[in-house]
Amino acid sequence: MSSCEAFDLGIQIAVFATAKDTEPVEFMTPHVTRSSFDNLEDMVAFAKSCDVVTLENEFIDSDLLMKMRDQSGTPLYPSPETFKLIENKKIEKGSFENAGIPVTPYAVVVNKEDLAAFGEKHGWPYLLKSSKGGYDGYGNETVTDMDNAFKAFESLGGTQGREILAEAFVNFRKELAVQVARNDHGTMVYPCCETIQENHICVAVLSPAAIDPKLQKKAQELAIAATEAIDGKGIYAYEFFLTEDNEILLNESAPRPHNSGHYTIEGCATSQFGNHVRAVLDLPLGSTELRKPAVALINLLGTKHRRPAQIDHYEEIMKTPDAHLHFYGKLQSKIGRKMGHMTLLGEDLDETYELAQKLTKNIEI
Amino acid sequence: MSSCEAFDLGIQIAVFATAKDTEPVEFMTPHVTRSSFDNLEDMVAFAKSCDVVTLENEFIDSDLLMKMRDQSGTPLYPSPETFKLIENKKIEKGSFENAGIPVTPYAVVVNKEDLAAFGEKHGWPYLLKSSKGGYDGYGNETVTDMDNAFKAFESLGGTQGREILAEAFVNFRKELAVQVARNDHGTMVYPCCETIQENHICVAVLSPAAIDPKLQKKAQELAIAATEAIDGKGIYAYEFFLTEDNEILLNESAPRPHNSGHYTIEGCATSQFGNHVRAVLDLPLGSTELRKPAVALINLLGTKHRRPAQIDHYEEIMKTPDAHLHFYGKLQSKIGRKMGHMTLLGEDLDETYELAQKLTKNIEI
Repeated sequence: MSSCEAFDLGIQIAVFATAKDTEPVEFMTPHVTRSSFDNLEDMVAFAKSCDVVTLENEFIDSDLLMKMRDQSGTPLYPSPETFKLIENKKIEKGSFENAGIPVTPYAVVVNKEDLAAFGEKHGWPYLLKSSKGGYDGYGNETVTDMDNAFKAFESLGGTQGREILAEAFVNFRKELAVQVARNDHGTMVYPCCETIQENHICVAVLSPAAIDPKLQKKAQELAIAATEAIDGKGIYAYEFFLTEDNEILLNESAPRPHNSGHYTIEGCATSQFGNHVRAVLDLPLGSTELRKPAVALINLLGTKHRRPAQIDHYEEIMKTPDAHLHFYGKLQSKIGRKMGHMTLLGEDLDETYELAQKLTKNIEI
Repeated sequence: MSSCEAFDLGIQIAVFATAKDTEPVEFMTPHVTRSSFDNLEDMVAFAKSCDVVTLENEFIDSDLLMKMRDQSGTPLYPSPETFKLIENKKIEKGSFENAGIPVTPYAVVVNKEDLAAFGEKHGWPYLLKSSKGGYDGYGNETVTDMDNAFKAFESLGGTQGREILAEAFVNFRKELAVQVARNDHGTMVYPCCETIQENHICVAVLSPAAIDPKLQKKAQELAIAATEAIDGKGIYAYEFFLTEDNEILLNESAPRPHNSGHYTIEGCATSQFGNHVRAVLDLPLGSTELRKPAVALINLLGTKHRRPAQIDHYEEIMKTPDAHLHFYGKLQSKIGRKMGHMTLLGEDLDETYELAQKLTKNIEI
């Protein structure tokens, strides 16, 4: 997605892919380096071949990124300094708290006593997360009592020295997300959207979120403040809980184009990918306004294991004006894996969401 | 452009490029075959490696294309049979005339007598064109009297056996264009747009054309009829003259995505590239409706010779909502060469065109 936005501006892309990688982006450029993220020499050589480097995941050690940038002399955005503030969930939450952004109650837990104390203070169930490396519910466990709390702590690596965070279970009305693009030209914030999750996987995104515009604005302000708190350059996504009391708590962030912002491809004047490319190239950022009053995105999750991946019963989507099908070209389909998405633009959010669900109901992928 | 539409559907692309080619698309795939269009063996091997083959130019001999398709067994759209009906301008005009589509008056000219007779019958000035291979005014000459008529005839290769057509100079009110996508699922026609030319080069496209909706519809009907006349599968562009008497005459056609349809990228629900990909893959065609009431496209022509090409003073475009900059990434900038374009969406055609001109006025490229 970012690649095509770059191509639109006449910019070539190069990809640093790990050896066992088979990502779709490798089929979009002749410039592919196959190596791994523990080979600094290859990383530096790759960076030297580029004018600017950006990242599509946040799991590479910030010290290594700093060495790559400093030894190659090639700018890297988001910067290693930003990654230092967010690569560990505990440090990240601290960065945001210091900027006055409300986050979900949390604590580092290192033993049974901590697990019990957290449950007593914040109630059961609660969440256990590893401080580093989790996404989409992987690396997260919901725990309901001391018995499974310790089992989860163990399975997340807590007894082998991994840092584990306990996070209070927030009774939320809705989950919200906001994307922010930022560079030296300024800051552009996307509409506040609602994300709908099932089993910790986002199944749908609705924009704008069907909430009081004041709350939308509040979420946007918090997202901007969060980006400033980590001196972010690039595109950032923030996921919030909207509580029963209309409090907005920051839950997760991602320093890259994010699934919650895929609806912006057709839904907004400039997509999150377009502004990602602009942000890291220090170009003026583009308008984030919605193209139609309502946008609904449905994630297309794998319904079966097959290789190569295929999609069936998509024809109705293709015939529907304002419906846009994306099939990612991943080689392997797995049950529950994000294999594509569909975005539908409309005038009314409920109607648009209803039609979007109808159009995608029979998809097999 | 077609590549990114394919990527959106998880489809990989491969490119057959001539040896001296340095086209941007080569930077968008690892699958590049470097050969030439007189190497049937390479063409067949290339076609065998693909599920379907399509073309971005119409200058390859249809007999050769037929051999490639038949020896590889890979479908090719537009088909060689379609190319047979359009590769020679005389035969093409005949194909369209047979379907009742009005074309500009023309005749094959082989000597001085023919040149004089055509001028006498249709008036001076008129146009001389080689039957094969011209585009964007290359291979076209405007002639004003017998003296320069014969010189032009000579320079176009008429005295060396090239077939030369004389075409009457049409006093037109406007030049129009219509794109049509067609495959076994059906036919989708784009709005009738106006193209504005300077020195035979299209400098701007306005959609919909500011003419009576009945005339828009007439042009769309002629474009559909023309596509059916050549049994076209894929995307086709038709350029028409609208005469002072509101007659619509077919001037040129192109069996591929065409510069007159670049405005559809952001201007229409499905772009000409999206429908090109769908058409040749036998997928359902997408809606061609306009996303906003008015669309203006300005072609960005090279203002200086430089390599690598660069673009200056584009920042205002990037800041304008509904303005979309495309810079093609061609390596070499030449004065007058199409190096990119800008599309602006709006509510009112005159205002949109005016703002589009203002935004692009200072571009250097």
